[in-house]
Amino acid sequence: MQSKTIMIVGLGLIGGSIAKALAAFTPHRVLGMDLDPEVLDQAVACGAIERPGYVEDLAQTDILWLCLYPQAAVEFVRANGSALKDGCIVTDACGIKNAVCPQLKALSEELGFVFVGGHPMAGKERNGFEVSEATLFRGASYLLVPCGAPRWAAECMRELALQMGFGQVVETTPEHHDEMIAYTSQLPHALACAYVLSPRCLGHKGYSAGSYRDVSRVARINETLWTELFLENREALTRELSTLVENLQEIQTALQEQDGEKLKELLRRGREVKESLGE
Amino acid sequence: MQSKTIMIVGLGLIGGSIAKALAAFTPHRVLGMDLDPEVLDQAVACGAIERPGYVEDLAQTDILWLCLYPQAAVEFVRANGSALKDGCIVTDACGIKNAVCPQLKALSEELGFVFVGGHPMAGKERNGFEVSEATLFRGASYLLVPCGAPRWAAECMRELALQMGFGQVVETTPEHHDEMIAYTSQLPHALACAYVLSPRCLGHKGYSAGSYRDVSRVARINETLWTELFLENREALTRELSTLVENLQEIQTALQEQDGEKLKELLRRGREVKESLGE
Repeated sequence: MQSKTIMIVGLGLIGGSIAKALAAFTPHRVLGMDLDPEVLDQAVACGAIERPGYVEDLAQTDILWLCLYPQAAVEFVRANGSALKDGCIVTDACGIKNAVCPQLKALSEELGFVFVGGHPMAGKERNGFEVSEATLFRGASYLLVPCGAPRWAAECMRELALQMGFGQVVETTPEHHDEMIAYTSQLPHALACAYVLSPRCLGHKGYSAGSYRDVSRVARINETLWTELFLENREALTRELSTLVENLQEIQTALQEQDGEKLKELLRRGREVKESLGE
Repeated sequence: MQSKTIMIVGLGLIGGSIAKALAAFTPHRVLGMDLDPEVLDQAVACGAIERPGYVEDLAQTDILWLCLYPQAAVEFVRANGSALKDGCIVTDACGIKNAVCPQLKALSEELGFVFVGGHPMAGKERNGFEVSEATLFRGASYLLVPCGAPRWAAECMRELALQMGFGQVVETTPEHHDEMIAYTSQLPHALACAYVLSPRCLGHKGYSAGSYRDVSRVARINETLWTELFLENREALTRELSTLVENLQEIQTALQEQDGEKLKELLRRGREVKESLGE
């Protein structure tokens, strides 16, 4: 791949880590935009970006990488998309896809850029540029959501993701993405918050080990971002919450009825799913 | 502490790890009993135990460590407790306490040994002697449940736990133990099984990261053991399941009503609990 000019919009945990990974592991030129001038200073100082980017740079940008909250990402393109050159790839890092891809796709057709959706499957329980890392994506899955983009553009993003250290690139649709993410990511975040709201949580120290730690870990949540993500995927997430509650209630009923055989069968089925996945 | 003769009954993951930790980090003499002669051979071969133990050895045993399923532990003492010398410490490693401590306490008064309950807070998703490790307890919490035992006996078990590498010893009652364990350990295990029973689980690969991995980890469960543990603590676990289901349903309702403020407040409360714990 020829060296490209890549503009990162939003240098938080994800945008900062993308900038650092691009700077560390690829030959591309990286510029960055952020509302916070101190973050821009830090990003220049550590070499994550060559310099702050401006709207005037958009005409020379090959890839515009939106690392903002979902609706803010759409708004950025609505406000600035006309400054992009024809054929510029616009991609995103949003954790939901149905609520952004169709809008960005429509803007791409209107304004002449190429939209390829994306979702880097990595995170942390801390936010902001200061905790971003070049190696955040090492071995992680990069979800590529081409939404009808030309093949060259999808392949460009695939190659870039692999250059940055992702372990695999999985191509999917917005619909399938959101259905799977409701289960693999949103449900565990909802669960972690629900779990730590038990009155027993505040007294757990000394009485807990790995299973407490693992279930509660992501309760340290950015509630503004996740409220938007949950609301914009509410059908799929509601379905997963219902399924989980039903499964929990089956266990509860077996317990209350002291039905050991039933309880054992439910636990066995759980074990068998994990084993069938080789986990 | 003077060198003691310690008999481990049941060389599975926990009993095997206790034997290995005692052999590696303490000056005590360790004997072991197990129904499986191959396990005994392995335990001798790797130095976890000096030799297999027999009922005749109980008269020279200073500490009898029951590493069996809860009711099997009580049965072992009922069948063999009269062979113990006066003042022998009998302890256990059961994950529930109300269903074993009163019975073992009553047997101790009848037969002349000293009962001190215990629960080493560590585990793995695999079972058996072959996955046991001398370092399994490093930094973990040892829950000490003296049940009215004389101070010297409780202090002996505390000292032993620290010699073995536990990070802290927390003294508690059977009632408080079971209430906390329902939340910190049993609920995450029930949850992991309920979580992986979603139809989406079998297709998660490529679409998942740390939060899937962490919630589902302990679904690889020993269903025979955990059915017994759940049933023997069913009141506390049922209460925790109810609390969790209510908290999940509050999130679900806010989602369905598209009540962003309410949703954000629920997530914020989760975050604040984690932060208040310094986690």
